[in-house]
Amino acid sequence: METISTNTCFGGVQGVYKHASDVTGTDMTFALFLPAEAQDGPVPLLWFLSGLTCTHENAMTKAGAQAWAAEQGIALCFPDTSPRGEGVPDDDAYDLGQGAGFYIDATQAPWDKHFKMWSYIADELPALLGAEFPLDMDRQSITGHSMGGHGALTMAMALKGRFRSVSAFSPILNPTQSDWGRKQFAAYWGDEANWGSHDATLLMQGGGFDGPMLIDTGTDDQFWDLLGTDAFATAFASQRQQGQIRLQQGYDHSYFFISTFMEDHVAFHADALWR
Amino acid sequence: METISTNTCFGGVQGVYKHASDVTGTDMTFALFLPAEAQDGPVPLLWFLSGLTCTHENAMTKAGAQAWAAEQGIALCFPDTSPRGEGVPDDDAYDLGQGAGFYIDATQAPWDKHFKMWSYIADELPALLGAEFPLDMDRQSITGHSMGGHGALTMAMALKGRFRSVSAFSPILNPTQSDWGRKQFAAYWGDEANWGSHDATLLMQGGGFDGPMLIDTGTDDQFWDLLGTDAFATAFASQRQQGQIRLQQGYDHSYFFISTFMEDHVAFHADALWR
Repeated sequence: METISTNTCFGGVQGVYKHASDVTGTDMTFALFLPAEAQDGPVPLLWFLSGLTCTHENAMTKAGAQAWAAEQGIALCFPDTSPRGEGVPDDDAYDLGQGAGFYIDATQAPWDKHFKMWSYIADELPALLGAEFPLDMDRQSITGHSMGGHGALTMAMALKGRFRSVSAFSPILNPTQSDWGRKQFAAYWGDEANWGSHDATLLMQGGGFDGPMLIDTGTDDQFWDLLGTDAFATAFASQRQQGQIRLQQGYDHSYFFISTFMEDHVAFHADALWR
Repeated sequence: METISTNTCFGGVQGVYKHASDVTGTDMTFALFLPAEAQDGPVPLLWFLSGLTCTHENAMTKAGAQAWAAEQGIALCFPDTSPRGEGVPDDDAYDLGQGAGFYIDATQAPWDKHFKMWSYIADELPALLGAEFPLDMDRQSITGHSMGGHGALTMAMALKGRFRSVSAFSPILNPTQSDWGRKQFAAYWGDEANWGSHDATLLMQGGGFDGPMLIDTGTDDQFWDLLGTDAFATAFASQRQQGQIRLQQGYDHSYFFISTFMEDHVAFHADALWR
């Protein structure tokens, strides 16, 4: 593992690191914020999974999360959204290929060689983080934005017992019924009969999440029709899922929305992480 | 004036606007955050002047200022750092030409036609803001980063009575004795005999600022030798200037430093603006 940069930030350290990933077969970059408390021992970890086109950097610089994580004494991990580099397949569209891993393991050529973001986030990266940093891996929670909200919710519901709480900003909630989902699943998995169960609405219908859930979406989200919030809300209510879906008046899909409600989300996770 | 974008943010509106500037002879872009209180009447205004290579966008997205401005009910203006576009001279170096206006009015060709950032920030842009937005222009304060800290301090000391408080992050404090200053002043103003009095240390020696001043610089600033903090501190103490110079242990020149102390700076200005 190589340290790309470290910056003192809110009394802690915002680092960026690179490592050779066995799972993706590429170098992968991630950012990790450690609060001051990490100098004295392991701290809880909150994951932030980013959306389409993002790298590790967008949320690290624009979400304003470090202020609240420092206040709560928890670490933040910002992974990349896909494998990258020469030899890694890509597509001219912003929503397929590099920057658009969708947090699934591809099975179809040419994507199947490198696009293994599910295994990378679920297995390889947490193992590396637990070995290299002062993190209490028994205290993990997860959040994300848009495609990353899809990732956070599907991971939280599929990896039972892993995360103490889950939240999302403007998440893609029903990708099997959306152009943000069908296109990518068809490319990465091929025929619909072979699609995995990586759809938050389907997972909610199948049992939901054993812990608190918080979802924020803006009423003026310019991608509203792609998110599937209505279908998910139905499943959420039917399942009597512990948690809340909040529709925030006048907000859109941007980081201005994310930063506005970041304090709420970090405090929400801190409640679960420190319990 | 043209609206480029608006995003709801912390209950207010983060806008980006473009207008034809008479002073620079170009289109100029700026960002303005209006808190929710602006819907009910004029609010105070805090200027943030950015550093080398920045546009209106860097601080708008990375400084985390809107959270605190919303809490205090004050507006934020993020101007660009130079004129830009085809026909505007530039230099291959990052620290001269476009992105490096240094908040002065150039007198030497080829810069003298467009590089008039002093007049733009001191006169033209405030007149436009006062006419177009619900701002109380009798309540203004100013801050900035690096080159923008130089701009904030020189404006505050030269434009007597304009600003109620001044602060800066990692400011260039003695540009007439630094490679961040001498190079640009020589290009924009020519022979040293013709340089204007745009040096915070010289202005402090000449009388200082009639109000509170707050300066934060990191002890691990990678550009420490270019900032002239020592010379300014001498003048600050000699002048018995109301205010404080804080050296923050372990912090560097980055936006991770700025965002860490932004809450302090906005609260500091709010105290003066609401008095």
